Amino acid sequence: MMQVQKPQDAYVQVNEVQWQDFPSDFHSGGVKWKLLHVSPEFGIWTVLFYCPSGSILAPHIHHGPAEGYVFDGILELRGGPENGGALCIKDGFLYEATGAEHDETKMLADTTFILQMVGPLTWILPDGRQVNQTWSDAEELWNKQIN
Amino acid sequence: MMQVQKPQDAYVQVNEVQWQDFPSDFHSGGVKWKLLHVSPEFGIWTVLFYCPSGSILAPHIHHGPAEGYVFDGILELRGGPENGGALCIKDGFLYEATGAEHDETKMLADTTFILQMVGPLTWILPDGRQVNQTWSDAEELWNKQIN
Amino acid sequence: MMQVQKPQDAYVQVNEVQWQDFPSDFHSGGVKWKLLHVSPEFGIWTVLFYCPSGSILAPHIHHGPAEGYVFDGILELRGGPENGGALCIKDGFLYEATGAEHDETKMLADTTFILQMVGPLTWILPDGRQVNQTWSDAEELWNKQIN
Amino acid sequence: MMQVQKPQDAYVQVNEVQWQDFPSDFHSGGVKWKLLHVSPEFGIWTVLFYCPSGSILAPHIHHGPAEGYVFDGILELRGGPENGGALCIKDGFLYEATGAEHDETKMLADTTFILQMVGPLTWILPDGRQVNQTWSDAEELWNKQIN
Repeated sequence: MMQVQKPQDAYVQVNEVQWQDFPSDFHSGGVKWKLLHVSPEFGIWTVLFYCPSGSILAPHIHHGPAEGYVFDGILELRGGPENGGALCIKDGFLYEATGAEHDETKMLADTTFILQMVGPLTWILPDGRQVNQTWSDAEELWNKQIN
Repeated sequence: MMQVQKPQDAYVQVNEVQWQDFPSDFHSGGVKWKLLHVSPEFGIWTVLFYCPSGSILAPHIHHGPAEGYVFDGILELRGGPENGGALCIKDGFLYEATGAEHDETKMLADTTFILQMVGPLTWILPDGRQVNQTWSDAEELWNKQIN
Repeated sequence: MMQVQKPQDAYVQVNEVQWQDFPSDFHSGGVKWKLLHVSPEFGIWTVLFYCPSGSILAPHIHHGPAEGYVFDGILELRGGPENGGALCIKDGFLYEATGAEHDETKMLADTTFILQMVGPLTWILPDGRQVNQTWSDAEELWNKQIN
Repeated sequence: MMQVQKPQDAYVQVNEVQWQDFPSDFHSGGVKWKLLHVSPEFGIWTVLFYCPSGSILAPHIHHGPAEGYVFDGILELRGGPENGGALCIKDGFLYEATGAEHDETKMLADTTFILQMVGPLTWILPDGRQVNQTWSDAEELWNKQIN
């Protein structure tokens, strides 16, 4: 067995990182993102999202658990409470379980939240096509955007 | 916070479990499987495969790490050693990293191997369509087949 | 194989949860905590910490990765930059790798940060004894404190 | 963010690897091991054990899930069926859940099994001391033994 590299600590001063455009296929309304960390072994990626009021994240499936924290604003999950969904509000912690299928996620205010995702997302596009987005896709895009 | 259920130990006497047909979309040549365990929190599923000589697993992508052990036979990965690929042989341990893209995997002998997979596979069908297979799809199929 | 329970989504309105005392064996200076989530399958636990200026977390070892975000304040890791350590400051994202051995972690201001930990911590007490703290210990303590 | 290294595939022809002595603090009766793989990000380590009939693994705690397969022989877990425990027999798959506390594990025959462990074990020695064994301890020992 070869000597393996020990995993490395990391630190990001997030307020010094510039927002980049999140892919337009996966949302409407001007969502921005910062990719904070990737853990390639398990395909984990941690993102800070900024979503203007009225912006919408396209329907998607989580293939691993997602843990997040709402720094500011309001996310309306699965149609909101009137339709059996939920609101995630400033100072709210959310856990989306493996296999969670989310319809459109709508922002009811300018919303900033962090989300750690394990494994890929499957985005469902308006034409019905399904597109996987992995930690690796995210990292490749991010490195293009910041260089 | 609610009281959560502690995770449970499990045991399967594997030689007493009947082989079932693995979905024909994902292979040719009569591959059989036994679903040994699922870990829903991270979407982990552990399978014992029996692949007759000459059978072929369709091209696929691993979205999390896969660890396996060849009990018997020979798997030819990625075209075999002549094409930069590899052979996995009886008493071989294999680790397929997150993001590994496998072309057709061909069996050069009757082959039995166990594989623990984290997260979904994306199978690439002959017509180019991509189909995700998750722990949950696997479990649903298995429970249908054994009942 | 038995039918397994699908993992469940969760949501915590964190600002409505009361702070509790973090165990005095593991710190000095009045550290408070809120246990936000546990994922028993992998032994993952997510905590919001409030650490008054001058408080100190005892030396400890991380046995899995820890991801965190500093909402407010300043943490001095490993003696600070003058001694080869680091400062984690408001709006900073931190990743502590598996196996990270932390000396005393000192707060240079009133500090609030979230930390998701995979697996147990080993705390090193002043008398040299090592004590493991797992997700399960954390949950048991939390449920006692809030009831 | 820095470019990260993609995780790497691995293969071990296990029957060509020599058995080494497992640490005598953690067992009696001549247990041998082969370290097949480590995944440093989550602290995962995969071991093939050979335990002669009558050998005993010391009491221990699993701090993450362990998945295994018995290639040959019989393990008696937690005192065996007469005492509420279990037998793991040739061609048996076992899943030990996070937090599982195992008393002495006794071999009722020459036993070979593979075990993938997430996170550290805590071994409980005859004098009551608790000793953690991590993926990193395992790798360090292994590299010493094979060189």
